[in-house]
Amino acid sequence: MADVNRRIVLASRPHGEPTPAHFRMEEARAPTPKAGEVLLRNRYLSLDPYMRGRMSATKSYAKPVEIGETMVGGTVSEVVASQNPDFQPGSVVTAFGGWQDYSVSDGKGLRRLDPAAAPMTTALGILGMPGMTAYTGLLNIGRPKAGETVVVAAATGPVGSLVGQIAKLKGARAVGIAGGPEKCAFLRDELGFAAAIDHRGPDLPGALAAACPDGIDVYFENVGGAVFDAVLPLLNDFARIPVCGLVSGYSLTDLPPGPDRSPLLMRAVLTKRLHIQGFIVWDFADQESAFLTEVGGWLEEGRVKHREDIVEGLEKAPEAFVGLLKGRNFGKLLVSVS
Amino acid sequence: MADVNRRIVLASRPHGEPTPAHFRMEEARAPTPKAGEVLLRNRYLSLDPYMRGRMSATKSYAKPVEIGETMVGGTVSEVVASQNPDFQPGSVVTAFGGWQDYSVSDGKGLRRLDPAAAPMTTALGILGMPGMTAYTGLLNIGRPKAGETVVVAAATGPVGSLVGQIAKLKGARAVGIAGGPEKCAFLRDELGFAAAIDHRGPDLPGALAAACPDGIDVYFENVGGAVFDAVLPLLNDFARIPVCGLVSGYSLTDLPPGPDRSPLLMRAVLTKRLHIQGFIVWDFADQESAFLTEVGGWLEEGRVKHREDIVEGLEKAPEAFVGLLKGRNFGKLLVSVS
Repeated sequence: MADVNRRIVLASRPHGEPTPAHFRMEEARAPTPKAGEVLLRNRYLSLDPYMRGRMSATKSYAKPVEIGETMVGGTVSEVVASQNPDFQPGSVVTAFGGWQDYSVSDGKGLRRLDPAAAPMTTALGILGMPGMTAYTGLLNIGRPKAGETVVVAAATGPVGSLVGQIAKLKGARAVGIAGGPEKCAFLRDELGFAAAIDHRGPDLPGALAAACPDGIDVYFENVGGAVFDAVLPLLNDFARIPVCGLVSGYSLTDLPPGPDRSPLLMRAVLTKRLHIQGFIVWDFADQESAFLTEVGGWLEEGRVKHREDIVEGLEKAPEAFVGLLKGRNFGKLLVSVS
Repeated sequence: MADVNRRIVLASRPHGEPTPAHFRMEEARAPTPKAGEVLLRNRYLSLDPYMRGRMSATKSYAKPVEIGETMVGGTVSEVVASQNPDFQPGSVVTAFGGWQDYSVSDGKGLRRLDPAAAPMTTALGILGMPGMTAYTGLLNIGRPKAGETVVVAAATGPVGSLVGQIAKLKGARAVGIAGGPEKCAFLRDELGFAAAIDHRGPDLPGALAAACPDGIDVYFENVGGAVFDAVLPLLNDFARIPVCGLVSGYSLTDLPPGPDRSPLLMRAVLTKRLHIQGFIVWDFADQESAFLTEVGGWLEEGRVKHREDIVEGLEKAPEAFVGLLKGRNFGKLLVSVS
């Protein structure tokens, strides 16, 4: 292939909040698949908060992206050339193609999509990693029961919006926290959350307490920071806290000023018998087909809804990603690559 | 009964560490059992860290002891008069008789003891609430697997010593933390812990790291504070932390100085997928007979050992309790009441 491959590499590591200047667009010759490999043309790139972690040198689940390396990311991609008998040109797959036009794969980890069954973009959102994160974290750790109150922040995002909707399907009350009145109206009017709270409002703790008259039984943790502080005093005995993300802290350069409140947190764990558990979606990899069947069914039946925020053009990815960390997207953030 | 009942009441609420001056001995006429009640003469009183919580007005699991009220506590007691057909004078029972010579009970919550089966004091230690705390917290939340490393502090106490010994029986490596070389030698030589660390030594984090070359898979939390700080960096992915007590913080009057390290804790929860869960023993009340059968069997077979620290005389209870919070006891602390 003589085509040009545009790719976005990590130009430098951010200290604090990333800006578009921490990325650099490069052009190179598109790669050529070797025996057993396929050449993928990325159609949609998923932008997700975990990518902030990959920009730092600190050890986390996965190894960091090195300076000069292409940013990693999930993609919906089309097979445009194949040296692998399992994949034919024209097939559409989910891949981990990264922030670029083209990538090669040996076929491992590719999942074939049927674009007739559901829009292909759903494979990066409600029927992809974010959806499975919501499904596995809520059902394995959160375990909402009918009549309980489930709180989730970043509630219009692809994880939070499904957390709330599954909570509702299980008979629980869903309370969402989001930024701005438009997002809150969407949670209430479109997704059927029992209450929605604008975290930019003047009194988050008071508004949350008013929205949770029976306390909080499940808090699905996406954000940390001020939201967690507002949640903690409202947690009921035996509350469950699946810890999925802490986006408010990803770009912290220093710890907050004192006093050290960690003893308060541990004391609440003890006296309220809280269950706090971190997870990443691949800890529950064996539940992928159950997830696809169940949530796919709900989506087809219209029992769950989703919303996408699609940015046109790979070159827009850095700015869109920076906005994601500030909550500027409204729905699952995707880049239409070409 | 015309007998005098000596009782120790809460004289004032401590701000910070309690002293014997926060208690007061009173004498009153021994109570008389009404229809359906029994009169109990307390033989042994159990002193336990949770009692510190009852001295404070702050809400916890249970309601505080009021000023002037008799301190609560588990006892081994003898039925000395009975208006309840289920209990005959001369029977020995476990009760919640409090810090006094006599109490009355309607029979609820009394458990008949067979003094021939095991020494009656074990019903307040290894075969009582502390033993069941170790058993249920470790097996339900800690879930040690063969080859894993289990760390417990306050390790010569009745909870910690059984935690380590059950971990060993499950094929795990037990590492204990205790105060002073004598206690550490006991853990290694008598209880068979793989390693024992003196928390009064010069470098707790370094000593703990050296004792846990493969990291920590289960940390049974009894104490909090500096021990938890040393444990946190050593926790392996998917480590489990049953939170049973935080004795180092029970008398804190102020939070430690900053920075606020709670974001560090939550970040560790996320990246290591920790499972932190608070519990009290009665959350697992339905496992009491399984506990008595299994641990009773181990005790009879000599597969678990226990150590008691018995103080003579009810009047010594305040001083002994103050010492318990400072780790001065060596083994399960009991008061021989009369």
